[in-house]
Amino acid sequence: MGCSRVTAGEPRAMPAVEDKYEKVMELAKRRGFFWPSYEIYGGVAGFYDLGPLGARLKEKIVALWREYFIRRQQHIVVEIETPVIGPEKVYEASGHLEHFTDPIVECLRCGRKFRADHLIEEKLGIKAEGLTPEEMTRIIREHDLRCPVCGGELSEVRKFNLLFKTTIGPYSSSVGYLRPETAQGMFVSFKRVYEVTRQRLPLGIAQVGRVARNEISPRQGMVRLREFTIAELEFFFDPEDPWHGGILDELLDRVGGKLRILRADAKARGEEKPEEYGVREAIEEGVIVTPWLAYWMAVARDFVRELGVDWNDMYFDEKLPEERAHYASQTFDQLVRVSRLGWIEVSGHAYRTDYDLSRHMKYSGVDMRVFKPLKEPRVVKRRIIVLNMAWVGRTFKAKAREIAEEARRLSAEEAERQLREKGYIVLAGEKIPAEHVRIVEKEEKITGRKFIPHVVEPSFGVERLLFVVLDHAYSEHGDRVVLRIPRRLAPIEAAVFPLVRDERLVERARRLWWRLLDAGFHVVYDDDGSIGRRYARVDEIGVPAALTVDYQTLEDGTVTLRDRDTWRQVRIPEEDAVEALKRFLEGASLEELGEPLEAAGEE
Amino acid sequence: MGCSRVTAGEPRAMPAVEDKYEKVMELAKRRGFFWPSYEIYGGVAGFYDLGPLGARLKEKIVALWREYFIRRQQHIVVEIETPVIGPEKVYEASGHLEHFTDPIVECLRCGRKFRADHLIEEKLGIKAEGLTPEEMTRIIREHDLRCPVCGGELSEVRKFNLLFKTTIGPYSSSVGYLRPETAQGMFVSFKRVYEVTRQRLPLGIAQVGRVARNEISPRQGMVRLREFTIAELEFFFDPEDPWHGGILDELLDRVGGKLRILRADAKARGEEKPEEYGVREAIEEGVIVTPWLAYWMAVARDFVRELGVDWNDMYFDEKLPEERAHYASQTFDQLVRVSRLGWIEVSGHAYRTDYDLSRHMKYSGVDMRVFKPLKEPRVVKRRIIVLNMAWVGRTFKAKAREIAEEARRLSAEEAERQLREKGYIVLAGEKIPAEHVRIVEKEEKITGRKFIPHVVEPSFGVERLLFVVLDHAYSEHGDRVVLRIPRRLAPIEAAVFPLVRDERLVERARRLWWRLLDAGFHVVYDDDGSIGRRYARVDEIGVPAALTVDYQTLEDGTVTLRDRDTWRQVRIPEEDAVEALKRFLEGASLEELGEPLEAAGEE
Repeated sequence: MGCSRVTAGEPRAMPAVEDKYEKVMELAKRRGFFWPSYEIYGGVAGFYDLGPLGARLKEKIVALWREYFIRRQQHIVVEIETPVIGPEKVYEASGHLEHFTDPIVECLRCGRKFRADHLIEEKLGIKAEGLTPEEMTRIIREHDLRCPVCGGELSEVRKFNLLFKTTIGPYSSSVGYLRPETAQGMFVSFKRVYEVTRQRLPLGIAQVGRVARNEISPRQGMVRLREFTIAELEFFFDPEDPWHGGILDELLDRVGGKLRILRADAKARGEEKPEEYGVREAIEEGVIVTPWLAYWMAVARDFVRELGVDWNDMYFDEKLPEERAHYASQTFDQLVRVSRLGWIEVSGHAYRTDYDLSRHMKYSGVDMRVFKPLKEPRVVKRRIIVLNMAWVGRTFKAKAREIAEEARRLSAEEAERQLREKGYIVLAGEKIPAEHVRIVEKEEKITGRKFIPHVVEPSFGVERLLFVVLDHAYSEHGDRVVLRIPRRLAPIEAAVFPLVRDERLVERARRLWWRLLDAGFHVVYDDDGSIGRRYARVDEIGVPAALTVDYQTLEDGTVTLRDRDTWRQVRIPEEDAVEALKRFLEGASLEELGEPLEAAGEE
Repeated sequence: MGCSRVTAGEPRAMPAVEDKYEKVMELAKRRGFFWPSYEIYGGVAGFYDLGPLGARLKEKIVALWREYFIRRQQHIVVEIETPVIGPEKVYEASGHLEHFTDPIVECLRCGRKFRADHLIEEKLGIKAEGLTPEEMTRIIREHDLRCPVCGGELSEVRKFNLLFKTTIGPYSSSVGYLRPETAQGMFVSFKRVYEVTRQRLPLGIAQVGRVARNEISPRQGMVRLREFTIAELEFFFDPEDPWHGGILDELLDRVGGKLRILRADAKARGEEKPEEYGVREAIEEGVIVTPWLAYWMAVARDFVRELGVDWNDMYFDEKLPEERAHYASQTFDQLVRVSRLGWIEVSGHAYRTDYDLSRHMKYSGVDMRVFKPLKEPRVVKRRIIVLNMAWVGRTFKAKAREIAEEARRLSAEEAERQLREKGYIVLAGEKIPAEHVRIVEKEEKITGRKFIPHVVEPSFGVERLLFVVLDHAYSEHGDRVVLRIPRRLAPIEAAVFPLVRDERLVERARRLWWRLLDAGFHVVYDDDGSIGRRYARVDEIGVPAALTVDYQTLEDGTVTLRDRDTWRQVRIPEEDAVEALKRFLEGASLEELGEPLEAAGEE
């Protein structure tokens, strides 16, 4: 049960309230961050709307993600966009049709359906993740587990596929699915992206987009949704040369720092506390099996920190083999502590190897390999079989081509063995006598190597990040709520108030408000109620700065700028408001901006 | 067949090539703006990927749309995000289950399916839009129209619903649909958004998101897709007071200018040329039936102009009644001329009245009306019927409540008539004698009015805009392609080159490149091939500025800045590069930035 930021004496201190989760959810709904979708029709589980503040916050979170995973990496990462709907073949190849399932059990009396592993864990306290349907059915039978609603008998456990199914076009046989991840879009179009980016590795292909997972019984508000936004990166590299010259080295120097990791083998021993590893140390000691995975985990660490998450509220949890997705050979979940729900996954970091490209190569018949030239071409000698094609053509007519092809595939050693033992070789079922066969040595120039790139994937659930930001920003100051959203993420950047509703102040304040609007900011204007009440209203939605026009403004043209987090104020010249606000949002302290005011009680 | 920008003598002149459309599509694919999705599986009609340049361009188009329709309108418009998947009830209420159909006809021999109206128009030259399936079937029979592929007989024409259907959750009876527009999300959640935005009209609710339409046979590349991104605004206002005090007036002053409109009645008379109207004039003369529709059309005009579309390549086409969607009482399509396809719709501007909110009110039972207080509450006198409820209760027991309810609905005049004629009144089938009935005058304070807001909707297809930008930006300069994308929309903002691959120049250029990266720009670095070839490579993808490090840089620290559109260059100090690039992208002329260079031939 997490309640972060409990640091006595700090200005950001917050009382450890039992029902903080409820408070965050209530605030989110009342002020318009998010609410359950389709409320007027009784709601549909697993769907949430983002309201005006939530949509703005999400936009800023996505922009920050792009900053970390794309813009700053633009020499090795590009972004694309692919459709939500995909044809059946794609999800057959990806393995989702077979593996993307949850165990389901049905009440034979009332017909209600439950996720079998969750039911077993909740009702019997037995860990059921990774068990087969048969094993779960046995546990249910042994413990006589019954329907938690009506007490009826339960069916056998079976697998329920989580893909949303649909039909493409007027032919009912053209089955399509909604993507459960954006990743397959990057794999299916990998060759095309590789070509337009000048055929070089490493190559990261990023995408931000909607995905859908038909959860059996979604719960936990914004944390388990049936439809949400994913921000993910498929990063392709050469498994035989993952360092790619100096590219990775230079980037590792840039990120540095440590990672908190709870290893799978430590977990298996009952450990619950993560350990700290330097990023390079984690690579060298084999804690992280491939170096790019470590690099992107370090980037993810920095990104999530900037969302307002403390060092101790985050670690990387290595998945046990039975917890991993079907495509992954090593996976870390990035966990963040939130109220009530405890540790939740905000991103997954999977080493997908060449699994996906190999599967698509097999199912599509298209060569997914890339060609990497050697620095120096090498010359090798190879022995080949040469047939007297004039004779072969005369003798076997239409079959001659097939014979020639088989000759190309046969090894010189095997041909020699047959000639030695039988005096002829057999090609396409025909005997070719020794006099029409020669074994010749040939020189071949090898200019490079063909291989399927390997992939590591950092993948974020955006709505979860949004919830994390709110949960970590939520604080109480006396009987007031202050949402300490990091300044650069705040949905509304500033508020403009006239101190009182005096026409001269109102007019001046509205002029200032339009100035800030025209300069590109999102700003609220409010002249309704006492100034204290108006401060409280904007504190609650995390507006970092409030500018107030008062009587002194009429005299000397200065306004007050109030900091949401400290409630301290400075006076700044009205004309400098745009520049001051810009610097404040970029992180400047209040004192850098103007003359401090004596603190005045707001209550 | 449009080919814009053919203005002789202009630097933006472009030869009128016959196959410009092919060239744009080829460039888009080769350089990575977009390509058909799922190519390795043979493709699926109606789906396109956006490549690295396309995704960036789209992001910038959406940002510009938000700028015009949200940020500059933030006192009256908010943005939300709602799910793609919706329950059946929503699309029953919206009318899409009934009306969102296209006529389909099937070949009885080969089973192929065709869009009936398109087939009739193409093969017979008869305009079929708006005809009933029966009328189309008759035309097919009369002209003996047959399958264009196998010559087989065609079936009767029937309606095909374009909604993608799916199932939500493990219960197969929970039918869901993919939204064909984002609009229903705004209608269904209207009351919630209205509450969190302090219950004021006018209120615009905007959304940018994926939609899906299961077209029968999509064609025309990016113009008719089965899945695409829509950017739309549902703007709610009081139909009895659309001007909302001075709010609309102030905004109309801000937009000004004229609109090119082709009216429906003119079209019906065979007119093909749009006429020009001032925005206020169009309102006053009733050309546009409600003023907010006119305002948002003016905003749309300015937005599309900024995408690089000339005045003469755009107009608003009023839809004929049979061309309008089922929910609209007046609709204008914003048409833009593009190569090969001619005039295409980039946005629709519909007056949806209270259709949608009324329907959701009816289907959900939730009151969708808003309350508008009067400036001064009014007191009115009203006569009501008062029953002796003690007697009614004793006499009619359980039925008493129903009787009381009917009494509230009955008018005093009607009660008096019955009492006069019969000596009793009839309520819920029971006789209430005169002695238990009184007619009483009561004063009532009316503080406001309840009503369902009306809606106008500007709605853009984002992928079409992307195609429009490329099509209008495409130009040829000798044998070179120059993509004159407006500077602020360019996917890649600058290029950095060393003049030649001299290590001193390379190192200096790479340093400059990192500087621009760190300052937040998207910049390519390239040292491969001749400088002319490198300029050509970036001209072709619309990079507005190229910065070149040469030997003079080593001496005096200046670099050249080259303008994509004029190929002219200036020298600027290396340290000013960030600021100069920023100003250049904001529209500064080359001459404002530095010392002009003598033009050097690039070929």
